[in-house]
Amino acid sequence: MPMQPHAPNDGESLPPTSIGTLYGVGLGPGALDLLTMRAFRVISATRLLAVPVKAVGADSFARSIVADLITDQQEVLELTFPMRSDPEVLRPHWEKAGRAVAERLAGGESVAFLCEGDPFTFGTFIYVFREVCRLLPQAPVEVIPGISAYHAAAARTLMPLAAGDDRVAILPATYGVEIVGEMLERFDTVVLLKVKPVMDQLIDLLEERGLAKHAVFVNKVGTDQEQVVADITTLKGHTPDYLSLVLARNPERLKEPVLRGCRKK
Amino acid sequence: MPMQPHAPNDGESLPPTSIGTLYGVGLGPGALDLLTMRAFRVISATRLLAVPVKAVGADSFARSIVADLITDQQEVLELTFPMRSDPEVLRPHWEKAGRAVAERLAGGESVAFLCEGDPFTFGTFIYVFREVCRLLPQAPVEVIPGISAYHAAAARTLMPLAAGDDRVAILPATYGVEIVGEMLERFDTVVLLKVKPVMDQLIDLLEERGLAKHAVFVNKVGTDQEQVVADITTLKGHTPDYLSLVLARNPERLKEPVLRGCRKK
Repeated sequence: MPMQPHAPNDGESLPPTSIGTLYGVGLGPGALDLLTMRAFRVISATRLLAVPVKAVGADSFARSIVADLITDQQEVLELTFPMRSDPEVLRPHWEKAGRAVAERLAGGESVAFLCEGDPFTFGTFIYVFREVCRLLPQAPVEVIPGISAYHAAAARTLMPLAAGDDRVAILPATYGVEIVGEMLERFDTVVLLKVKPVMDQLIDLLEERGLAKHAVFVNKVGTDQEQVVADITTLKGHTPDYLSLVLARNPERLKEPVLRGCRKK
Repeated sequence: MPMQPHAPNDGESLPPTSIGTLYGVGLGPGALDLLTMRAFRVISATRLLAVPVKAVGADSFARSIVADLITDQQEVLELTFPMRSDPEVLRPHWEKAGRAVAERLAGGESVAFLCEGDPFTFGTFIYVFREVCRLLPQAPVEVIPGISAYHAAAARTLMPLAAGDDRVAILPATYGVEIVGEMLERFDTVVLLKVKPVMDQLIDLLEERGLAKHAVFVNKVGTDQEQVVADITTLKGHTPDYLSLVLARNPERLKEPVLRGCRKK
């Protein structure tokens, strides 16, 4: 596990022959005012920005969040991450993106990779980061955490994620809904990502268990495409957007006994 | 589940006889520049701030994060949340805190409750929010999500939380270490909070499973009391701080088959 001294580092002040700094900048869920001050600072201090796109020439959600901040003096490098789930299909794209970034870092430029949400929570930044660590292990890396979509969804719907001894599971729906059912017995809150392929089955499962009323569907919170659906049964038969998520609570689950202080082993 | 129209609302512009707005403001892990712009705006626009303290007159971590932002024109209401884990001991304190806030809201003042991390992720704000919903259900509530300590810890240690089909479990260690072992078989990343009472047992468990090298200990990331320990075995016999956490990865776990698109039911 790499680790670096972490004084915030303005890469632009390095001499041109030094290796540039790779910044992974979390932009949060989509509203400009949910960027952190640190993200603002790094974006405005770095000439070379990188953004993920689904295909050459396609829109970038990350870029759209900070469109008002990007100036003509900055260069935007588009890196392609196709909307596919098979790692074997994706790997050459990860390698190409990482190589493009590593070349610029090796040439002495810093690169700020802009990533919706939090860069290290299902962010495309992770693939670039891994590739840069492999190709250019001496490159300084700084990650600026961002507000995750699920934290923003909880805030927006006034649905606490966890209090006291609660447990939270965060999982992509790609393992099928059976596992979601199981998780709802062990966790107070289940955050379900990539719900698109299993939406109808998920609604059935939550209805069968009487938990549909404790679930909420959220997509692109804080943007002009925001969707918040408190009654998720109304979504049956609809195909949700790729970035949408479901927060499901199970207030009835049987809890294991809790240690109070250190009295019990 | 309550839900509100969510245009950001500057409570101070309401006429004095209206009910004030309750803001739950996430401050992030401890560094001032990890506040969001929205948190800055709400803190500066709200005269009455509330902060959690462990005991009357004790320091408040939340207050210390934003000490430089608070002006003489603002009032800071201290609300006591003792460092106890028994809900029956805590309930009268939650009720008292909620009542104090509800009275000010009913009098027409808005209240910004300042909360380290994210307000809805193990935040003391949740107890005030629930009590205000009970006493004054018509009060407008707005929650400003914050960077969680575990997101900041992952960024700080350059340890991705989840990529692709990974799963994350977030749980307090109050259920004992046996459950942590089980969770490491089902989840790629386990975020363990409130590790204080089980630290030695946890280190033993991670060593037995060969996972100690994939774990990291973090406390108060981004503050001047920050502790980051990459080799957690060196912590044996030490009593960690209440706010410390452990990120543990299990790169070897056997994964269930994944659905690719919708081909498999």
